[in-house]
Amino acid sequence: MNRALEYLHASRASEIASLQRLLRTGQQITAVSELIHALQRERGASNIWLCSDGRLFGDELEARAAAVADRQRAVIAALPPAEAQPGYSRFCMLIAAALQALEALPLLRQQVRDRALEQVRAMDAFSHIIRTLLNLVFEAADTASEPDISRALIALFSFMQGKELAGQERATGSAGFAAGTFSAAQRQRLQGLIDAQEQSFATFSQFADADSLARWQQMADAGSQIERLRRIACTGAPYAEEGVLQWFTLLSERLDKMKQIEDGLCAALMAGCARAIAAAQQAEARAPAPDADASFSLYVAGASWLEGHDATLDSSGIAPQLGRSVLSLIREQAQRLQAQSNELATMRATLNERKVIDQAKHWLMQQHGLSEQDAWQRLRKSAMNQNKRMLDIAQAILAVAATLQA
Amino acid sequence: MNRALEYLHASRASEIASLQRLLRTGQQITAVSELIHALQRERGASNIWLCSDGRLFGDELEARAAAVADRQRAVIAALPPAEAQPGYSRFCMLIAAALQALEALPLLRQQVRDRALEQVRAMDAFSHIIRTLLNLVFEAADTASEPDISRALIALFSFMQGKELAGQERATGSAGFAAGTFSAAQRQRLQGLIDAQEQSFATFSQFADADSLARWQQMADAGSQIERLRRIACTGAPYAEEGVLQWFTLLSERLDKMKQIEDGLCAALMAGCARAIAAAQQAEARAPAPDADASFSLYVAGASWLEGHDATLDSSGIAPQLGRSVLSLIREQAQRLQAQSNELATMRATLNERKVIDQAKHWLMQQHGLSEQDAWQRLRKSAMNQNKRMLDIAQAILAVAATLQA
Repeated sequence: MNRALEYLHASRASEIASLQRLLRTGQQITAVSELIHALQRERGASNIWLCSDGRLFGDELEARAAAVADRQRAVIAALPPAEAQPGYSRFCMLIAAALQALEALPLLRQQVRDRALEQVRAMDAFSHIIRTLLNLVFEAADTASEPDISRALIALFSFMQGKELAGQERATGSAGFAAGTFSAAQRQRLQGLIDAQEQSFATFSQFADADSLARWQQMADAGSQIERLRRIACTGAPYAEEGVLQWFTLLSERLDKMKQIEDGLCAALMAGCARAIAAAQQAEARAPAPDADASFSLYVAGASWLEGHDATLDSSGIAPQLGRSVLSLIREQAQRLQAQSNELATMRATLNERKVIDQAKHWLMQQHGLSEQDAWQRLRKSAMNQNKRMLDIAQAILAVAATLQA
Repeated sequence: MNRALEYLHASRASEIASLQRLLRTGQQITAVSELIHALQRERGASNIWLCSDGRLFGDELEARAAAVADRQRAVIAALPPAEAQPGYSRFCMLIAAALQALEALPLLRQQVRDRALEQVRAMDAFSHIIRTLLNLVFEAADTASEPDISRALIALFSFMQGKELAGQERATGSAGFAAGTFSAAQRQRLQGLIDAQEQSFATFSQFADADSLARWQQMADAGSQIERLRRIACTGAPYAEEGVLQWFTLLSERLDKMKQIEDGLCAALMAGCARAIAAAQQAEARAPAPDADASFSLYVAGASWLEGHDATLDSSGIAPQLGRSVLSLIREQAQRLQAQSNELATMRATLNERKVIDQAKHWLMQQHGLSEQDAWQRLRKSAMNQNKRMLDIAQAILAVAATLQA
């Protein structure tokens, strides 16, 4: 076989190998989604248990913990092998961090059962574990090299992020309703969680498939009962003692409905992987007709700086017929990779925006001792006051941070 | 072994595997640099042969072709195996394009020897082959995941690009001096090549190691003899008949000196790879002391959206001593990967700038039938007239292009 054709073949085979790796990542992420949902339920039950001073949900704790253990085994079974692979360093490191975080669960459960831990600390401990799991989904979205799958992953990650924020809203609200009063900090936190959810679901809506989006639009509105309780929480209006259970039940129903949409997103992700693999295999099998007339011009973004008249070489009769046929195959592959690269660049911009905002937030937290919610609120208010995007404010902050460091 | 530690180990082993792949890429690129230099010399000899109507350099052609064949064998021996590897699709496709372009050499040489090809067409054919080889270097620079090595690759690519533009300047000038006159198009092309060289060497200077930069600064000035001939070419001042050989000799000496700097850049690249591998192996071998006091906060850019107070979990006594030690190992690895990611983002911005400008140039070429040089000049003039960066103009053009397509 012609050596050029060998590498063309290797290029397509590498594309298929990348997609098959993505398919396995999709399976891992589906398992992670199940584990997160189970952890959110265990966090919810633990929360009510602690808030009710051990009066409510005592029976639930065991069942929730058992469900988490099940899901945890499934995640560990789905993990990629712990082997050296070029380009796998970050993913492996995030898996290590997630596994390490999960190690803390038995002791955490013991302390919850003994009511030896403040409610806020217990919630934070659960949320920390969930965050390390969500990091895996973000990393997958950030490194996927196929636009459709990258889009599905961004939609899924944003949705999981929104759902987790809804879970934290449930915890924060439960604590306030159980205590009979909301502190100023709790109110601010609640408001921040509601705002951040909106942002997450806006990103989701931008990238989701039509089916999932339609299902979300039907339930995007939190409903009047939840909104009434939110208003009570945020304004300090009076409410009945059973408020905590009403709140918990309503928000739990909402989280379960979200989980159904999340399942649809996982299914869409897997279907997208399967479709992309089939398409790449078809492209490999199909031999396009030689393209004798068109002058060949391999355009690879960023590498085309010498592109010009010289591309007429191949229609000048220098290249033999076989050469032209190979050229048209190479061109087809180049165009496919280029189209992917262009689309990915657009999507990466969305993720980069998130990274910049997060880095600015992190800097504010470190430098000014702010909480995550406070830092986010400060960014948001600055943006509103100055009539700019949060991204602009975040970039300005990072520029200042860089100057201070230099 | 603890499963978290297994993945931490896999993360570091993956980092080392990525670096070893980069080391092999460095070897491939060193071979490509040699082949490009040999091709530039064959192009130069062919050019003089054609420009002198077969009177000069007839003996050289054979020797130059033999040198290219030597270097070509070395490149092919250094190529990675034509195997499926996730993330290797673009690189394999570019290898296929380069090998395919090299296939045209025997026929091209025959046509040059028979003087059956116009000088411009022959030069363009050689330049096309060289461009496909340079694409490999660009791709390596665009995908390297270690900041120091990425920097060395960007410096090397920019230098090779500048040297190739100098080679094209030599060809364009030789044709004009041999013909006894420069057409308006030739003059414009010459000016464009001189300007583009400056841009390439400016990027090189931004990323080069201190030694290479110092060596370049000594020879950056083209010297008064070359500048005098450039002026003659661009203004149509009278000159002696032996101008063509004087021009060719001066520019060839300059290209040979550039090759020495390029060799230094290749050596710096390989040394950087070896250093990075040693550092990663050292980090793997060294076990940092447990960090019992500090509260753990794993910060992964873009995945830290839930970061907050909850990170105090591990200093609260929940995590056992072993856990803390693992956490500090994970944190160290997270910080290293994060520092790399931040630095890479900055460098990628430079490459993206080039991509945007190239895409805008390509669009101008396609839509307005401009040559590569004309498109570049038009971008440049617009930028100067509007007192903006070329990047801004290019982005504006692409925005218009997107609107027209929609």
